[in-house]
Amino acid sequence: MISPVPSQSAEEFAVPPVYLDHAATTPMLPESAAAMTAVLATVGNASSLHGSGRAARRRVEESRESIAADLGARPSEVLFTSGGTESDNLAVKGIFWARRDADPRRRRIVTSTVEHHAVLDAVQWLVEHEGAEVSWMPVDEQCRVDPQWLRAELAAHGDETALVTVMWANNEVGSVLPIVELASIASEFGVPMHSDAVQFAAQAPVDFAASGLSALSIAAHKFGGPHGAGALLLGRQVPCVPLLHGGGHERDLRAGTLDTAGAVAMAAALRKTVSDFGIRRAELTRLRDRLIAEVRRVIPDAVLNGADPGERLPGNAHFTFPGCEGDSLLMLLDAAGIECSTGSACTAGVASASHVLVAMGVDPRVARGSLRFSLGHTSTDADVDALVAALPQVVQRARAAGLASVGARGGSR
Amino acid sequence: MISPVPSQSAEEFAVPPVYLDHAATTPMLPESAAAMTAVLATVGNASSLHGSGRAARRRVEESRESIAADLGARPSEVLFTSGGTESDNLAVKGIFWARRDADPRRRRIVTSTVEHHAVLDAVQWLVEHEGAEVSWMPVDEQCRVDPQWLRAELAAHGDETALVTVMWANNEVGSVLPIVELASIASEFGVPMHSDAVQFAAQAPVDFAASGLSALSIAAHKFGGPHGAGALLLGRQVPCVPLLHGGGHERDLRAGTLDTAGAVAMAAALRKTVSDFGIRRAELTRLRDRLIAEVRRVIPDAVLNGADPGERLPGNAHFTFPGCEGDSLLMLLDAAGIECSTGSACTAGVASASHVLVAMGVDPRVARGSLRFSLGHTSTDADVDALVAALPQVVQRARAAGLASVGARGGSR
Repeated sequence: MISPVPSQSAEEFAVPPVYLDHAATTPMLPESAAAMTAVLATVGNASSLHGSGRAARRRVEESRESIAADLGARPSEVLFTSGGTESDNLAVKGIFWARRDADPRRRRIVTSTVEHHAVLDAVQWLVEHEGAEVSWMPVDEQCRVDPQWLRAELAAHGDETALVTVMWANNEVGSVLPIVELASIASEFGVPMHSDAVQFAAQAPVDFAASGLSALSIAAHKFGGPHGAGALLLGRQVPCVPLLHGGGHERDLRAGTLDTAGAVAMAAALRKTVSDFGIRRAELTRLRDRLIAEVRRVIPDAVLNGADPGERLPGNAHFTFPGCEGDSLLMLLDAAGIECSTGSACTAGVASASHVLVAMGVDPRVARGSLRFSLGHTSTDADVDALVAALPQVVQRARAAGLASVGARGGSR
Repeated sequence: MISPVPSQSAEEFAVPPVYLDHAATTPMLPESAAAMTAVLATVGNASSLHGSGRAARRRVEESRESIAADLGARPSEVLFTSGGTESDNLAVKGIFWARRDADPRRRRIVTSTVEHHAVLDAVQWLVEHEGAEVSWMPVDEQCRVDPQWLRAELAAHGDETALVTVMWANNEVGSVLPIVELASIASEFGVPMHSDAVQFAAQAPVDFAASGLSALSIAAHKFGGPHGAGALLLGRQVPCVPLLHGGGHERDLRAGTLDTAGAVAMAAALRKTVSDFGIRRAELTRLRDRLIAEVRRVIPDAVLNGADPGERLPGNAHFTFPGCEGDSLLMLLDAAGIECSTGSACTAGVASASHVLVAMGVDPRVARGSLRFSLGHTSTDADVDALVAALPQVVQRARAAGLASVGARGGSR
């Protein structure tokens, strides 16, 4: 008999695991969960005209105003979506279609080589299915980009460019990209620019108006809100073709019954997250820097990937452990009650090197021995202590397994 | 100061309203809300490989199995989406693209004139943007279709047809369409058929395997689950191009972090709904028939729209009140604490006659004087009593307003 009731986590985790995977998803903030649960007890389709419908609509619009205020946007610029992937797809495909439809010469998309797959795969589909061309903005060995590259690109091809889309911070190595400078250049050439801020907005203040961006994606579950809720900030004048048609919701750009509970919970999570930045960012940075120092102390040949601490997300630490397979490290740490990731959760289980590390010039064989530790609102010094205590033996075992594997394959050429 | 915390419904409704708008959205079932709340307290991205991730994945897959079992589908045929609109758009656009890409002659879409806007507007976009052609299946005055029309259409144009998409039950007038017969005909001609079962699945058993359909849409909030959660049932062999790219979730057909809580809550709501059909459908039918009889008793010239009681959803009653504007009726009833709809909530506030009634041959001026009463799991005889007590005065006032309006316009030609 199949039961849809969830398995009990209490049984699964006699001791709660040490959770170092906040970039994959972070626990819901109590403020958000409480707000959501309260709305689940109400009824009302926000498009209905009667009292229950108007009450739902009011909750949605209050949430929209709250989110706009917390991100430096106007309420009308906030489009509710089902999450970061939908927001990215809507921005990339929708702006591409709208700009190409207005001028068939505009078939180019400028993007970086280190985007999340929600952008990369959307771009790739536009290339294969819709006749788009893509211009890849390179990154250096710290996952940094050169704004002058964009200026040269748009000077040569601005008239043919439908949009620029570059993530604000990389989800794997945590490098923060110079989005405001890039947006300013895109704006000079009259090209709309989108940024996937799914990771960035969870850990740093966003001012959409000041950013100069045309569009920006966020996902609630990265900052303590629920899964299945996100938003695309979209400037009022930015042309965009909807992905989901029907019903005229959200400026006619995103049809579907509004998820009142999701919107309210996302707004509550963002409000708490933004309010806490003042203390949280400093604390995350301190913890993260301690984690980096301790990992280097116990595993001296561990290589920190990504930008210098000042140019990366405060919660991110990303290492390569030479001679190890990332999956082995992950599983050995998991067995020790420590949860982290080899990179993006969205491609977990895929046995290939991270496209981000490869774009940064890391040898694919080396890149596979990488782990991302990401900290968040529940992280403590005890989490770092537990990692540091477990890591030496884990790395030793993973190296032994790696050597055995190399031996079995007859050499490591 | 804007607060994202929801307004209290207790303040808004000193007396809980009489809710006769279950087709727009129905209150969450306690089983579903409890299951969802329990999951909100857990952490884990279902794509993560560590223990928390695997626990989330297990919840998602148990939910998938439960939903499949309740709809006569295989688990691998259940794709989680953000709701009915996304499911409809994915099926219509995705199957169109896949079939056209495989054979450029296949540009025709066969659909009915009474579809929900999530299908209608998706089809319209394919016509305007993607070169599709559409063949409109007509309905009669009871919103019924003729399967032989489909046979003749496919006999003439089967080779050029990308897909057939016809709703299982109409969301406004509640007529149930002969989907199994239509699917059998589509199958004869080798054309995949999708059905929007968003309303039907909430009130009647679905057996996807036995239906012969290639694809079927459901939305959780129509059967006591949360907003923002739905599914597309899609046969394993049905070609479909994704709308949302990135990450390879859901058979590579729907990218995005899985909404574990939404999936669990949807499964719990569906399980309870399906388990209760045995008693609920008879009770809904009895209440609905009583509502129809009582409305006719107190408003003798009210016209019941849609099919005969045996061929309509058990919870649906849809009337035209000659000489009235539907919006006036709705607002007057709302003031009396009774909540209903003029048609689809998704187009509420749009001052034009329902495309469904117009397709059924109703004069657009008459069609505007219509109300949908839809019953659900919280409905009681007291709700019907309250409606019947309020209706005579409401209709009288709406008629007076309508006459005054006609007089002000100088006649009713």
